[in-house]
Amino acid sequence: MPRRHRTENSLLAKIERAFGAASGRKVARGKISSANRLSLGIGDDAALFRPTRGCETILTCDWFLEGTHFLRGKHPPDSVGWKCLARAISDIAAMGGTPRCFLLSLAIPEAATGHWLDAFLQGLRRASRQFECALAGGDTTSRNEILINITVVGEVPKGRALRRDRTRAGDLLYVSGRLGEAERGLRLLRRQRGMANRRDLRLQKHLYPEPRLALGAWLAEKRLASAAMDVSDGLSSDLPRLCAASGVGARIDAAKLALVALPAPDRRTPRNTRLQRFHPGVEEALQLALHGGDDYELLFTVPKRKAMRIPRLLGEIPLTVIGEITADRKIVVIGQNPRPTVLEPGGWDPFRLPD
Amino acid sequence: MPRRHRTENSLLAKIERAFGAASGRKVARGKISSANRLSLGIGDDAALFRPTRGCETILTCDWFLEGTHFLRGKHPPDSVGWKCLARAISDIAAMGGTPRCFLLSLAIPEAATGHWLDAFLQGLRRASRQFECALAGGDTTSRNEILINITVVGEVPKGRALRRDRTRAGDLLYVSGRLGEAERGLRLLRRQRGMANRRDLRLQKHLYPEPRLALGAWLAEKRLASAAMDVSDGLSSDLPRLCAASGVGARIDAAKLALVALPAPDRRTPRNTRLQRFHPGVEEALQLALHGGDDYELLFTVPKRKAMRIPRLLGEIPLTVIGEITADRKIVVIGQNPRPTVLEPGGWDPFRLPD
Repeated sequence: MPRRHRTENSLLAKIERAFGAASGRKVARGKISSANRLSLGIGDDAALFRPTRGCETILTCDWFLEGTHFLRGKHPPDSVGWKCLARAISDIAAMGGTPRCFLLSLAIPEAATGHWLDAFLQGLRRASRQFECALAGGDTTSRNEILINITVVGEVPKGRALRRDRTRAGDLLYVSGRLGEAERGLRLLRRQRGMANRRDLRLQKHLYPEPRLALGAWLAEKRLASAAMDVSDGLSSDLPRLCAASGVGARIDAAKLALVALPAPDRRTPRNTRLQRFHPGVEEALQLALHGGDDYELLFTVPKRKAMRIPRLLGEIPLTVIGEITADRKIVVIGQNPRPTVLEPGGWDPFRLPD
Repeated sequence: MPRRHRTENSLLAKIERAFGAASGRKVARGKISSANRLSLGIGDDAALFRPTRGCETILTCDWFLEGTHFLRGKHPPDSVGWKCLARAISDIAAMGGTPRCFLLSLAIPEAATGHWLDAFLQGLRRASRQFECALAGGDTTSRNEILINITVVGEVPKGRALRRDRTRAGDLLYVSGRLGEAERGLRLLRRQRGMANRRDLRLQKHLYPEPRLALGAWLAEKRLASAAMDVSDGLSSDLPRLCAASGVGARIDAAKLALVALPAPDRRTPRNTRLQRFHPGVEEALQLALHGGDDYELLFTVPKRKAMRIPRLLGEIPLTVIGEITADRKIVVIGQNPRPTVLEPGGWDPFRLPD
């Protein structure tokens, strides 16, 4: 096989072409795009962004590393592209903001600059279009493993951002969608051999998460949430962070949590198949909901007097009360055991992984 | 030795403490700092930045990776902290902007979360204070090697940014300071055993580069430069990028380039010592000036009618004409050989390194 010789310039050109094609035209060097508010994109020392008057700028960045956050042999490269951006955008959703643009830092082995990079850019571009978040620039280098870092810039009307530090005892604790589904997908994928099937429905939430942008923006606009964050590491790891920031505790009702946990196998699942064992029982579903990471649902708190304004569904996304904020700084689960159990963080923490 | 058990939370707390102490007070969670325009810093899903009216926001990010950009056994950790931020800020200088805040993405082995991290944070904090660029947030994870990615946010008055794509044939080509000094430092450091001496004067530009912020802001404010960029990969790699963006070429005058190359050994260097051989001869100094990376000087072009307004020194930094922009798209060096030589990119390109 001929050794491809790619210099940094040609890698940049490839990325630029992929994103130029995405918007149906060449990347507009030096032209202002009103949608994403970029007045200068790829190809200079830095990008230029024109902030919207009356808005604050939201800044967030996220690692996405081979071996830590994805496996080259198991995760389809287009899902790596989608997910690295989607999960960074989830932080914008958690602030109640609108994504504008992102920076891509990519370190990649030369062997991966062909097919792998093409498919990666395809997934990344699809997420970029879906969430209206334009590529503004980045940095590339050569490395023996694939390393990705994404910075996302978003905007939120001044003073409206959803923060972690404003909830009070008595507020109701809500979660969007279902918890544990992404973790179940990851477990399934780990047991499978080779590259995951991109179309396997049970893997969709793990491979192609959807940040809750509409929900976050709605909560911020209507001033309904006293605090919010996204569930990225797992409820048992993330809820304590929200509580610590606000100086409060929380009481989770296991019976309510069961409403957002994975359902029992439905009738469409053929019995007596190998697939069925991946449908968790009730207890396992609760554990997945408490400790499973990567769901990118929103966890938010609402003062009781505003609770009647929270619908059960926003679009197709269920909004479910799972407990209440307490003045006592502990986080407990009630109804699962005879006595309230103190919740220990059991979600994703890279420093708790075996060396 | 007892195994330290650090969770991601405690690592974040350490970073937060280091930067809280830097400003002489606790990190102001949720308080607005008027200097860096952060209305929400570390500790939420994302940071909030209040843009200055009439300004564009500059966005840039940079890798700084163990093994690629620094060596854990040779580069003092405080220089890693200083340099990872200083070189990212250099892109703000190259746009004529003022740095405001930065995001730190850090992947680190548990073994390095003690002394190494403390010294790293010390260097990072020193650069953060020196360049008035506040830590706004970031992401941390565990990894077998130290991986750093820095995003810097800066501001520049609307329409004043220094771009690469606006130079014209006939403009004069300037460079600030001296070229090749950082590369010489790197070569010296490579030949030495063990950790570099932080105080070795010959290593200062390699270990502790200074972005040319005052020069960039002055050029932008006075509208003197038609184009600018920083020299990070080396003149022979960076100048072609500026020329390509503007659709022009350039002619470098070797005699003028010699003015910004390293000088011959001065009288203070004792003769007959091992140190002396690191003072390059004239030809080697020219090669270092053409191809050496990491200097973070500014390369800029000035229309001839404005050239009289460029002083020879701005503060203590020499500003030197090294050539001229040409309509012909080639980049040539004259005066070094009997005929003009086409300049081939020979600076830093991670994809040209041996595998």
